[in-house]
Amino acid sequence: MSIIVLGTMAYDAIETPFGKINRIVGGSATYVAYAACNFVKPIKQLSIVGNDFSLEEMEELKSRGVELEGVEIVKDKKSFFWSGKYHLDMNTRDTLVTDLNVLADFNPVVPDSYQGSEFLMLGNVLPSLQLSVIEQLKTRPRLIVLDTMNYWMEAALPDLEKVLKRVDVLMVNDSEARQLSGQFSLVKAAKEILKMGPKYLIIKKGEHGALLFHGDQVFFAPALPLEEVFDPTGAGDTFAGGFIGHLAHTKDISFDNMKTAIIVGSAMASFCVEKFGPTRVKEINRADIDARIRQFVDLVSFDIQLI
Amino acid sequence: MSIIVLGTMAYDAIETPFGKINRIVGGSATYVAYAACNFVKPIKQLSIVGNDFSLEEMEELKSRGVELEGVEIVKDKKSFFWSGKYHLDMNTRDTLVTDLNVLADFNPVVPDSYQGSEFLMLGNVLPSLQLSVIEQLKTRPRLIVLDTMNYWMEAALPDLEKVLKRVDVLMVNDSEARQLSGQFSLVKAAKEILKMGPKYLIIKKGEHGALLFHGDQVFFAPALPLEEVFDPTGAGDTFAGGFIGHLAHTKDISFDNMKTAIIVGSAMASFCVEKFGPTRVKEINRADIDARIRQFVDLVSFDIQLI
Repeated sequence: MSIIVLGTMAYDAIETPFGKINRIVGGSATYVAYAACNFVKPIKQLSIVGNDFSLEEMEELKSRGVELEGVEIVKDKKSFFWSGKYHLDMNTRDTLVTDLNVLADFNPVVPDSYQGSEFLMLGNVLPSLQLSVIEQLKTRPRLIVLDTMNYWMEAALPDLEKVLKRVDVLMVNDSEARQLSGQFSLVKAAKEILKMGPKYLIIKKGEHGALLFHGDQVFFAPALPLEEVFDPTGAGDTFAGGFIGHLAHTKDISFDNMKTAIIVGSAMASFCVEKFGPTRVKEINRADIDARIRQFVDLVSFDIQLI
Repeated sequence: MSIIVLGTMAYDAIETPFGKINRIVGGSATYVAYAACNFVKPIKQLSIVGNDFSLEEMEELKSRGVELEGVEIVKDKKSFFWSGKYHLDMNTRDTLVTDLNVLADFNPVVPDSYQGSEFLMLGNVLPSLQLSVIEQLKTRPRLIVLDTMNYWMEAALPDLEKVLKRVDVLMVNDSEARQLSGQFSLVKAAKEILKMGPKYLIIKKGEHGALLFHGDQVFFAPALPLEEVFDPTGAGDTFAGGFIGHLAHTKDISFDNMKTAIIVGSAMASFCVEKFGPTRVKEINRADIDARIRQFVDLVSFDIQLI
């Protein structure tokens, strides 16, 4: 069982109320890979980096079962760079710098060795690139999961609509769900979005948890109440990695198993926010993850027999 | 098993994005009573009304097991009146009118027939009145639940601190928890507040559910994702009524049963927001409530065996 992950591999500069780091590895595909590799191998990365991307980081990824044949290395350019500063509530942030660098020329080519993968995670990049990857695959994966963002709903809606028709699961946050659907109520938003193509919709609400919609069914997963969110960067991608990692590991893409996968994703995201960038996600092992998942079980368990 | 409920019985004028009503019965004690009487009788009301309070409403309450001996009727004044307008997101509202009327002279006197009640719900009124009721009771109730609001944290903090030392459960919303504790993180806020007296803290987060803290334990109850919140007025009081009603009905005030009580309270609140004022809460029966609680079970149930 393997997962193809499309997304960015980048460097970030991050400032939060708790500290500042001038350069740390980031990018959607990096977070997805570091999370998913806890559950299944190989992860087949589709990305692009510049001449500044650390070889040590690449070796680290490889040692965890992440294949990099699909990662283009551009010799005369730098990696994608993002810099942001979080507000006190940690739910909003200002982007200070976006240097596309290599990302401006990104045109993912799926290596032959990636063909036949059963899971595809389309991280947040230009929708036309997401579409291109779907079209390059000779066999449709059993499950295609799409992440996107508000920017593409404005800048590339027709392409995004095409991608939506081709995927199984869409992940967006609450404001993106509202923007895409034109509905304020998330229940109504979900109904509209499920008409656009995906059979499953995950609405991420940050510290308020996540909702999974499928037909008339809905599932709610809480976020773990944390003393401190140190750095939310990459939490959504880490969630995605845990989600698709669990599904690929269990080979079960039913609605019931997606509920469990959302809990796994939420547990992974709860680690991610504890330290800068992917630092914490790189430290943890299966025992840590299992203990964290157990906390989620305790958090929502109640005895209905008493009623 | 009986519950004493201290709070307002009032009239409201409410405007939401969905409609407007110029006069409907309201008040914290009214909502608590209409919710709690589904689970236990009698409810022993401690409140004050003016000459305009509907006798029909009083008969309706009595027919549901709500005793009104402790409700003072002031012949030459009008009932407390509140008017508010909700913003589009339904989470914020502007108070347009607050006519204290009889409330300005409220000095609750606990009737002899109320003595010996095992549960006390202190609805949101002046903290000194809440304290007065505690002090009038010859036997301390098994469980005292306190609701309050940000206004008293500014206008009557010393009295509020005295009340906090005397109660078992405090219910506040997230912004009130932050204000009372001076902590932004709700986990840190809970730690601070639990030092002030209550052994249990419920933080209500509206559409984002509720958290129960006790020592180092935490429980999370979701809110039901609704297509539309028609009118949130009274939802917090209805939650309180379901919560204490379930505890009194089951005679079990353990942490585990409080989890279930929060689900019951959330279910009651989810009805409340469907129509203006307490209209919907007055319509429902036990079968409706049980079906709604079942929806909460489905909403959060996932199979941990699969992991």
